[in-house]
Amino acid sequence: MKLLKQEAAELTDRALEELLPSVETVPASIHGAMRHSTFAGGKRLRPLLAYQAAAIFAGAVPKGIERLGAALEMLHTYSLIHDDLPALDNDDLRRGKPTCHVVFGEAIAILAGDALQTRAFEVLAGLDSPPEATVQIIGLVANAVGTVEGMIGGQVLDIESEHQKPTPELVQAIHRAKTGALIRVSVVAGGVYAGAKLEDVARLTLFGCKAGLAFQIVDDVLDMTVDSAQLGKTAGKDQATEKATWPAVFGIEQSERDAARLIEEAFAALEPYGSRADGLKAVARYLVERKN
Amino acid sequence: MKLLKQEAAELTDRALEELLPSVETVPASIHGAMRHSTFAGGKRLRPLLAYQAAAIFAGAVPKGIERLGAALEMLHTYSLIHDDLPALDNDDLRRGKPTCHVVFGEAIAILAGDALQTRAFEVLAGLDSPPEATVQIIGLVANAVGTVEGMIGGQVLDIESEHQKPTPELVQAIHRAKTGALIRVSVVAGGVYAGAKLEDVARLTLFGCKAGLAFQIVDDVLDMTVDSAQLGKTAGKDQATEKATWPAVFGIEQSERDAARLIEEAFAALEPYGSRADGLKAVARYLVERKN
Repeated sequence: MKLLKQEAAELTDRALEELLPSVETVPASIHGAMRHSTFAGGKRLRPLLAYQAAAIFAGAVPKGIERLGAALEMLHTYSLIHDDLPALDNDDLRRGKPTCHVVFGEAIAILAGDALQTRAFEVLAGLDSPPEATVQIIGLVANAVGTVEGMIGGQVLDIESEHQKPTPELVQAIHRAKTGALIRVSVVAGGVYAGAKLEDVARLTLFGCKAGLAFQIVDDVLDMTVDSAQLGKTAGKDQATEKATWPAVFGIEQSERDAARLIEEAFAALEPYGSRADGLKAVARYLVERKN
Repeated sequence: MKLLKQEAAELTDRALEELLPSVETVPASIHGAMRHSTFAGGKRLRPLLAYQAAAIFAGAVPKGIERLGAALEMLHTYSLIHDDLPALDNDDLRRGKPTCHVVFGEAIAILAGDALQTRAFEVLAGLDSPPEATVQIIGLVANAVGTVEGMIGGQVLDIESEHQKPTPELVQAIHRAKTGALIRVSVVAGGVYAGAKLEDVARLTLFGCKAGLAFQIVDDVLDMTVDSAQLGKTAGKDQATEKATWPAVFGIEQSERDAARLIEEAFAALEPYGSRADGLKAVARYLVERKN
């Protein structure tokens, strides 16, 4: 697992290197900005989930799937660049490095986020999968980063809920949408790329929902319990801005129990695949055991 | 033609009404923002180009193409929302109405632009065209709104060239990318939706390049010669910010001659289609004869 995670990240990095325009390509500033944030030390977890989900159906990591992984990572990076903008979370530090707008200015940071989203869909349109599967993947991914129970919708709920007393329903809605949806669709898209059918998509969706929520609960706990240096971003930010987080509603101990329980429930959805799902389960275990 | 343009705009508007989440859908603020800018009196020219290009091959406006039209208009609207932001052009007025960030704040305006792009690709993934054509359309559209000779690339060149002496090469590169690429791909995507083959795509691309450049030259001239009330946006803005425009390099008279010449060249690319291309030609003529 440890080695595989490293190998998968390198596979993703090579694809991103190849698929993003070079810093010499005109106009250079935006390509520099896109690369600055894309190669800022991300863990490449969403691609890893896609690769391991695909392995259930393909027996191994299928050829060309690293382009799906790269597209998922571009979408994740785009969301971080826009989240960090002064008008949104106003964060200067991300993964231990200055954020995009700090280095390139606000205008280029806005456009770099825009362009990473665009490039992600362009890369998806060029996948090796059969056209039917490619169209299905694009539709699923677009839905997961959209406004109705998707990533942007979660971002809006998050902004609107600052400085309000969070309820269990609200924090769950934010988490499922803001980070959960992209994690969920990474799993599902990986499966579809490798030939997953209707029932498989349903199982992967269940797994992805549970694992995605567990991931964000752990993120919230780490924000409260780990310092900025280890976290690679400004720790304690959630409390300072009174964000709707899981521990703010349920406390740290209950949060840790909830994350562990969700991962067990996620595993149950994969039972029909037996040991073929071991790789995907290992990633899910890492999601809740990580320390940054 | 006059009636058809009106009918086409109504077709597009109905599709947008159906395809954008309602203002009651949670989270409501972003859906309000997306609709505010989408229904702010746009002329729906890009959808009209797609419909008329499709009519060359389908004999009539093919079923379901209004969703392609709506997606093109969502992409256009997203680009306007982000262009108008304080960090970019900082414009308070667009089509005679307050811009998105003026009404909804910067954070929601950024996310509304993001979400319109996302929804556009989701809508494209749901087109009725054969999966091969759908994938081709998505790839072409993403390329046209991207950084390498696409819309965002043109936007970056435009920002970087402010307050510099514009050269003919620079202003052509900006125009071809910033507005030309989306106009070009509207024509091409309409054709592909209706079954256009390799040679047709090449002809439509030539037509779209010429017509798109002519459109922007006319836009530049109108900015200098028409007042804000008629234009529906802040007139004279280009000169105030020393933008790289066609008349700034070539003068107004030469600009008008260039636009007329480009439209003739655009028509030549459609010659093999005879009268089947009359609808598309009529739109191109409107692009250069309009007064706002």
